[in-house]
Amino acid sequence: MSTPSLLILPGDGIGPEVMTEVRKIIDWFGAKRDLAFDVTEDLVGGAAYDAHGAPLSDETMEKAQQADAVLLGAVGGPKYDVLDFSLKPERGLLRLRKEMDLYANLRPAQCFDALADFSSLKRDVVAGLDIMIVRELTSGSYFGEPRGIFTEGNERVGINTQRYTESEIARVARSAFELAKRRGNKVCSMEKANVMESGVLWREVVQKVHDEEYPDVELSHMYADAGGMQLCRWPKQFDVIVTDNLFGDLLSDVAAMLTGSLGMLPSASLGAPMANGRPKALYEPVHGSAPDIAGQGKANPIACILSFAMALRYSFDEGAEADRLEKAVESVLADGKRTADLMQAEGGTPVSTSEMGDAIVAAL
Amino acid sequence: MSTPSLLILPGDGIGPEVMTEVRKIIDWFGAKRDLAFDVTEDLVGGAAYDAHGAPLSDETMEKAQQADAVLLGAVGGPKYDVLDFSLKPERGLLRLRKEMDLYANLRPAQCFDALADFSSLKRDVVAGLDIMIVRELTSGSYFGEPRGIFTEGNERVGINTQRYTESEIARVARSAFELAKRRGNKVCSMEKANVMESGVLWREVVQKVHDEEYPDVELSHMYADAGGMQLCRWPKQFDVIVTDNLFGDLLSDVAAMLTGSLGMLPSASLGAPMANGRPKALYEPVHGSAPDIAGQGKANPIACILSFAMALRYSFDEGAEADRLEKAVESVLADGKRTADLMQAEGGTPVSTSEMGDAIVAAL
Ligand SMILES: CC(C)[C@H](C(=O)O)[C@@H](O)C(=O)O
Ligand SMILES: CC(C)[C@H](C(=O)O)[C@@H](O)C(=O)O
Repeated sequence: MSTPSLLILPGDGIGPEVMTEVRKIIDWFGAKRDLAFDVTEDLVGGAAYDAHGAPLSDETMEKAQQADAVLLGAVGGPKYDVLDFSLKPERGLLRLRKEMDLYANLRPAQCFDALADFSSLKRDVVAGLDIMIVRELTSGSYFGEPRGIFTEGNERVGINTQRYTESEIARVARSAFELAKRRGNKVCSMEKANVMESGVLWREVVQKVHDEEYPDVELSHMYADAGGMQLCRWPKQFDVIVTDNLFGDLLSDVAAMLTGSLGMLPSASLGAPMANGRPKALYEPVHGSAPDIAGQGKANPIACILSFAMALRYSFDEGAEADRLEKAVESVLADGKRTADLMQAEGGTPVSTSEMGDAIVAAL
Repeated sequence: MSTPSLLILPGDGIGPEVMTEVRKIIDWFGAKRDLAFDVTEDLVGGAAYDAHGAPLSDETMEKAQQADAVLLGAVGGPKYDVLDFSLKPERGLLRLRKEMDLYANLRPAQCFDALADFSSLKRDVVAGLDIMIVRELTSGSYFGEPRGIFTEGNERVGINTQRYTESEIARVARSAFELAKRRGNKVCSMEKANVMESGVLWREVVQKVHDEEYPDVELSHMYADAGGMQLCRWPKQFDVIVTDNLFGDLLSDVAAMLTGSLGMLPSASLGAPMANGRPKALYEPVHGSAPDIAGQGKANPIACILSFAMALRYSFDEGAEADRLEKAVESVLADGKRTADLMQAEGGTPVSTSEMGDAIVAAL
């Protein structure tokens, strides 16, 4: 088999500096584990706008379609706030998700033992937490038509459309059930079926996929507002959560923050299998571009490094190598090494972005 | 001035039993403070469906339109899950909100000192917390057209429409700024302007109302997902939060749960002033109908009692009497009296729903 290709899109803010550390990891796997990748770098977000006048060029889009996997840093920054909606950095990311049809966004919310005290929640509520949020990523209010700002009578009206077809719901439900089978065998589906018809259809289709294809997985349904509450009250009641694009945006961020490990959390966005059997895939940290600390060596590269671990697992079928990388990260944390975002009263050894990357390579 | 009228809609589940306790409080104010109300009771939700085949009858709707204030318990229960969408208990509540045009939903998220340890968050994160979420309540994804489940090709599609006009945004923004002036003078507005055009318009209009009418109030904007994160991380950074109907549903529930005081939190839904100068108004606890504990004397009546305190303040201009009632509640809590939902390791004196009501009357 030919060397798999990896498209790297560092993006804006701390994106480039965390990606520099990921490159060290990639190089290590090439040199020491005979796992070479054909790596190309390109622009996305504000960086792409600065170079081409658009947050994602057609050329880059095409490269992403061809790549075996895409690894993205982060997009956005105050500098681009003045841009028109269609030119904003976020549109580059949304175009990738939509055109690659990456419908299943996997967001693990995991609490790292060494960081449990860092959460604003009590230790026993979050210690050992390991849930997986599966967020639908290519439809719903993010993409539904009609959308825009229109004039109606003598005033303007802002419109977006929440819109889900049965097949869109069924395919992301399948992703959730498949994951659950390899984890705690439990799925909780969240919507507002008490208020929104799109939620009624969502609930019905998830139930049907369950009954027909995954009767042995435990399925429950929860209203999304109650789901938010329960995430804050006792998150360990969940294993896999499946929800739509907009609810998933909020709920996965809340879940991520609860763990206290925000700078640590990766994500995978997966689509249908390509000709070579690999799913279309984009991997990115859950955190944003953090323009306030960009370029100061303060960023935590771990979320992006663990996103590469997810790529090893989900795109390249290298689960054992992914485990190896995750263990290396854990051992560096257990050693007390901490980037600025992880420094706490009780101490630890402060390290810079690149020192953290080097430490993880050393631990490998 | 004639005796003000109060329409009481106990609803389903624990609604009737908590309302029984509120009636004791109302009677006390009539007998001891010369604050008499002309009280009528009627049905809403599942109870109304059982009696009339609809979750709110036209007669009850008309009574609500005429009342000086409406006090609602809770709606919903598993018994009604099989009903068609249009007959569900929730539709009764939504009809009240929409036809009374109650656009500003005030949801205080307050942490009661005696209950700070009850939160899943660390004590210092929530102790003393006092924020006010102002949720738009009559528009957005809850009511926008088109909506429903349609057939498209050979499959069904579920559609709801997020829709906000400039004037809908402006009036709820004004409610938020007015409240902020009487509190910490700070408003944070939340939307997804990076993804949704309705959010772009929301942000622009809130900013304009601020600049033209409330330049002295401190205004910030936050994406709703980041807002959810910040609520979990350090909620005390907020004073007043203003957001749309759907985001408000989720964010206010998350905020309520954080306080550890869920069974304690009231809400007010306010519309435009009526001929008598009072706003159209509906008051209800934030908690739901809790069918699992209904009829067992376990329910906490405080959220509903504090909803009546909000009625005293916002409908009847009796701020001093509202303070009196709130202080009575605090003193009963300080005394260690606890309904089942408030019982903790450290103890307290267990009381039933009606014992809690009696204790508050005694404290008055
Ligand atoms: C950057 C933004 C467009 C994005 C989203 O809203 O999906 C982000 O919040 C996320 O969750 O990945
Ligand atoms: C009961 C339900 C219709 C309601 C809503 O979604 O608005 C509730 O969750 C609330 O927040 O008041």
